[in-house]
Amino acid sequence: MFMRILLQFPQGLKQFALAESAKFEKEGHEVFLSATPCWGACDLALEEAKKTGAQKLVHYGHCKYHEVTEKGLEIEYRLYPIDADLQILKSSLEKINQYKKIGVVTTVSHIHQLDEMKKMLKAAGHEILTSKGSLAIMDGQILGCDASAASKLAPKVDAIVYVGGGEFHPLGIDASKPILAINPYANESYFLNKQIEEKRKKQLGMLIACSQAKRIGILVSIKSGQFSLKAAEAAKARLKELGKSPSILVTGEVDFDSLKDFNSFDAYITTACPRLTDDSERIGKPIINMAQLPALFSLIKESK
Amino acid sequence: MFMRILLQFPQGLKQFALAESAKFEKEGHEVFLSATPCWGACDLALEEAKKTGAQKLVHYGHCKYHEVTEKGLEIEYRLYPIDADLQILKSSLEKINQYKKIGVVTTVSHIHQLDEMKKMLKAAGHEILTSKGSLAIMDGQILGCDASAASKLAPKVDAIVYVGGGEFHPLGIDASKPILAINPYANESYFLNKQIEEKRKKQLGMLIACSQAKRIGILVSIKSGQFSLKAAEAAKARLKELGKSPSILVTGEVDFDSLKDFNSFDAYITTACPRLTDDSERIGKPIINMAQLPALFSLIKESK
Repeated sequence: MFMRILLQFPQGLKQFALAESAKFEKEGHEVFLSATPCWGACDLALEEAKKTGAQKLVHYGHCKYHEVTEKGLEIEYRLYPIDADLQILKSSLEKINQYKKIGVVTTVSHIHQLDEMKKMLKAAGHEILTSKGSLAIMDGQILGCDASAASKLAPKVDAIVYVGGGEFHPLGIDASKPILAINPYANESYFLNKQIEEKRKKQLGMLIACSQAKRIGILVSIKSGQFSLKAAEAAKARLKELGKSPSILVTGEVDFDSLKDFNSFDAYITTACPRLTDDSERIGKPIINMAQLPALFSLIKESK
Repeated sequence: MFMRILLQFPQGLKQFALAESAKFEKEGHEVFLSATPCWGACDLALEEAKKTGAQKLVHYGHCKYHEVTEKGLEIEYRLYPIDADLQILKSSLEKINQYKKIGVVTTVSHIHQLDEMKKMLKAAGHEILTSKGSLAIMDGQILGCDASAASKLAPKVDAIVYVGGGEFHPLGIDASKPILAINPYANESYFLNKQIEEKRKKQLGMLIACSQAKRIGILVSIKSGQFSLKAAEAAKARLKELGKSPSILVTGEVDFDSLKDFNSFDAYITTACPRLTDDSERIGKPIINMAQLPALFSLIKESK
């Protein structure tokens, strides 16, 4: 049966959209491509699917993250495994020579290579531990909003190895042990602890700035897996009690220029993606996430 | 009765959001602010209203553009008139000395000053004509997608005067007569004909580039007043017949980085905002609008 199908790809995978689209069109389906930014399975193109009358949304590159029921819409999560050349893992082994117990994490793109990674590390004489994160559904997988597969392991291992592209994912790890980032794309590896510590300090600075701010914008995203209106309303009520002037800002994708146009807020709280805190430079103001709210309220009370 | 109200402001007016919000909160209402970009009354924050359970959407700065029925949601269009200092109009009169019949246009922000503008021009001895555009609802008003209040007047007048900020609105005018842009914000005035002619040439160049392109992305916006899926599907079918490889790209706000991520298209057609054609540099490829489709199809056929 021919269907109307909407294909959605995260940013790095949009380059493969036309090839995937051609496969479906060859089978006789009518294909639409979502052209909005997409950062995770929390970010499903439901409105685009509804407006185009799509019977199926094929979401590439992420596994299921949250329960979504949309009448008349089938949602298929299709992984897009990318075979990384793990040679760089092999040639990086000397850097973790002195560590016996190693925790390994990677992203959904390379999770199918986790066994191969473990094998290489074992062959070098290491004892390997993996763990399942709180929101991740696969062993050894870290998400932008959930690096707990690594953080939970930290007390039990001597070092953590991350294999994958970029620093976005491993910078989310909050760990006390050495963290070696191994990037098969850039063909390089280095310990990330300094960067993670810098990030922690920056977040602390933003928390303090936020506690001293008067006008606070609380960001709510309407993205299916990021919507936390109740948490935002609770934060607003508490901030009012504490003498602040909070407003709730509702958006899909956060538009940095729009936030600047308000020209009004001294600081922000995100109830949407917790990693928006990485974008404070682009937002132009300090920003904290929901996990930091208890600390924020304490700081404000203390300063009274 | 207290309500949940979502306030929505176009980009230039977001700076007034907190003051407006404070008025509603003082009356006891629960207020949310839309933080997405907003470019017109075609661009209503309906999904944000639905997700927050707003009973009312107050859309500032534009008058009603299209019929929208959302169960349980009242939509109020609230103009945000800005009093421009028209001194610059007075001091620019010498530039149009030689023209007897003058057509006057302005934007929704200053439409309440249209009578004053006419009076000044009359006092200087001009005969004044105004007209109502096709999509505009007020006499003398031009929109980003409808400058016909000016273009329709062109054959009947000796020159056209635009009063308002920026060049976005008057650059939409397609006219054979001198067009004087009078900007009360920048306190300057100049004839825009050269810029309009340059824009026309650039659009012609993009049309030709689009006719030679193989892979064409057809943009569909899910914004309430910009949604033209049927037109996009018709264009796709025709382009296929003509030997092209068209794809339909569905989005809300057009994200330039996402378009670049596809890394696939040689040219674009917008069935959404026709003024996206102004953003070709940001999009990184030639782009034409729906009004140019007949010319595109002709060009492709001719080149065969």
